[in-house]
Amino acid sequence: MSNQKLFNVAVVGATGAVGEQILRLLAQRNFPIQELKLLSSARSAGKKLQFKGREVTIEEATPDSFKGVDIALFSAGGDVSRALVPEAIKHGTVCIDNTSAFRMDPETPLVVPEVNIDKVSDHKGVIANPNCSTIQLVQTLKPLYDRFGISRIIVSTYQAVSGAGVSAINEMLRQSREVLEGNAVEPQILPVGSLPVKHQIAFNAIPQIDKFVDNGFTYEEMKMINETKKIMGDDTLEVTTTCVRIPVVYGHSESVYVELKQDFDIEEVKRLLADAPGIVVQDNTAEQLYPLATEAAGKLETFVGRIRRDLSNPRALNLWIVSDNLLKGAAWNAVQIAEYIAIEQQ
Amino acid sequence: MSNQKLFNVAVVGATGAVGEQILRLLAQRNFPIQELKLLSSARSAGKKLQFKGREVTIEEATPDSFKGVDIALFSAGGDVSRALVPEAIKHGTVCIDNTSAFRMDPETPLVVPEVNIDKVSDHKGVIANPNCSTIQLVQTLKPLYDRFGISRIIVSTYQAVSGAGVSAINEMLRQSREVLEGNAVEPQILPVGSLPVKHQIAFNAIPQIDKFVDNGFTYEEMKMINETKKIMGDDTLEVTTTCVRIPVVYGHSESVYVELKQDFDIEEVKRLLADAPGIVVQDNTAEQLYPLATEAAGKLETFVGRIRRDLSNPRALNLWIVSDNLLKGAAWNAVQIAEYIAIEQQ
Repeated sequence: MSNQKLFNVAVVGATGAVGEQILRLLAQRNFPIQELKLLSSARSAGKKLQFKGREVTIEEATPDSFKGVDIALFSAGGDVSRALVPEAIKHGTVCIDNTSAFRMDPETPLVVPEVNIDKVSDHKGVIANPNCSTIQLVQTLKPLYDRFGISRIIVSTYQAVSGAGVSAINEMLRQSREVLEGNAVEPQILPVGSLPVKHQIAFNAIPQIDKFVDNGFTYEEMKMINETKKIMGDDTLEVTTTCVRIPVVYGHSESVYVELKQDFDIEEVKRLLADAPGIVVQDNTAEQLYPLATEAAGKLETFVGRIRRDLSNPRALNLWIVSDNLLKGAAWNAVQIAEYIAIEQQ
Repeated sequence: MSNQKLFNVAVVGATGAVGEQILRLLAQRNFPIQELKLLSSARSAGKKLQFKGREVTIEEATPDSFKGVDIALFSAGGDVSRALVPEAIKHGTVCIDNTSAFRMDPETPLVVPEVNIDKVSDHKGVIANPNCSTIQLVQTLKPLYDRFGISRIIVSTYQAVSGAGVSAINEMLRQSREVLEGNAVEPQILPVGSLPVKHQIAFNAIPQIDKFVDNGFTYEEMKMINETKKIMGDDTLEVTTTCVRIPVVYGHSESVYVELKQDFDIEEVKRLLADAPGIVVQDNTAEQLYPLATEAAGKLETFVGRIRRDLSNPRALNLWIVSDNLLKGAAWNAVQIAEYIAIEQQ
């Protein structure tokens, strides 16, 4: 496009696991950028990052950083978003926020482009990017919801350590080496950096992601429950979640039981999923084909397999859903929203 | 006991992952053994194993091996059990079979001592030890079934590689080293040794344990469904399972959703579980206490935590159940049955 409108774009949290992927995708997708601002905490300010072959110096994110910025992508934690998104909005910046800060705010659209891109235009300056585990779930269930209706969803997750950031990846790899060498493991970060008790993640499964709520669920589990209802626009959905961290670097897997409101044909279910945008069906038991985290890592799509009718409830389906938690689960979903905004403004 | 009756005991598959634990437990529990026979394939015959400080030479298992044997514990695979259990029975040997060969045979009791030890006396020469994932599930659900009734169980598993034998443990550890060193991984055993397609298990989650059945479920999943109904003695139970292998060495974890037939008090549920034999409740969200595979490894108990009322269905509970798959999931359950038989015959 020769007369393409160009945008001043800021990436807040540019050095984090998600920020790094946002930059990679903005470059790879040739996002129409006039000026790129990389923002972070004071600690990383002054560092330089490569973008399309040139160096960009990271600046400290302050309320004034957003002057002249058209679109800002935030992934520097909820506290940073709560402090700076309102400041950016004052400057007329459209914010795409990857944290949980505004997700459940009734004024803020919570968007998965394949599910509810129409909500973007309702924004009051900020559009929220859902939790990683939620995105791949609702993206996959949307075509089934539209065709058959859904009454209940029961999910158990198998979540990668990259969801807890670069330091959690390093901790998992370091612990793995220590166990293989027969040395003692001293957990320092997982399950939750800010809580006192730490558990070994190498060769283990930790049934805690984020802090606990009084009802015995974790915040991660509550996010999946609440965000799924909000994105699907259906408060009557019954959703149950158990969120578990396992020793995988990239790629969240989900074991999903879903009760439909109508009888269904399993071949039609597979066709609906195969035709859905951004979804790849990997489902062939004869060839032992099903989604795997190691295969989904680095890809933009969400993968679904083990598609089978439940034996105890003929209106229920079982699915295995896998996606790269840093890509469709975070950076790619945010960049998709940014691309939609850019196209709308052409 | 000075006049304790002593038994001639055979262990078939003595060199396997489960056989090794059976021997360790027979020694540790001071099982009343007159003569111990270690049996295996021709390949391992002639090797020597230590038992209570003395050497025992492994013999090849043949139909004649069981002459004079009172109790035989089988864990050498379904084919060996199908071939030799009937031969052992001819010699009057009581067989405790850890394979799936006889589990669903209507004549064969399928026993988890804490659930249905009374079935042992119905045996016609063989008592089946259930699948590892089933044992920890039914053991935990039994007190809730007795008190409230259960209508539906939905389980997703997080299963250790030791369930696929010593070679799978070695493969997982080798692959982990290869990934950490940045080398290519060449999967050779998992998910199923006898099937052509292999997948990386290190830093991955594989949603296939055992071969696939025509209905899209795996044999492992069908075992859990069918065995749970048989052990609980209730064909009306609705059970759904998704069985997943993760990179853990010892200890299966299970995310369990269970619908009760009556309203319940969550504190009573915790008390019932805490009072149940062989169960340890680890449930304190303030202290981030819940069962972990690495902590359950090497222990005889089954651990349960994350006990919480479902938010979408007030008659449903969510639980996280962990046990050492080679111990309560296999060797210890078998030795418990052997101990019961020994005590009955005193």
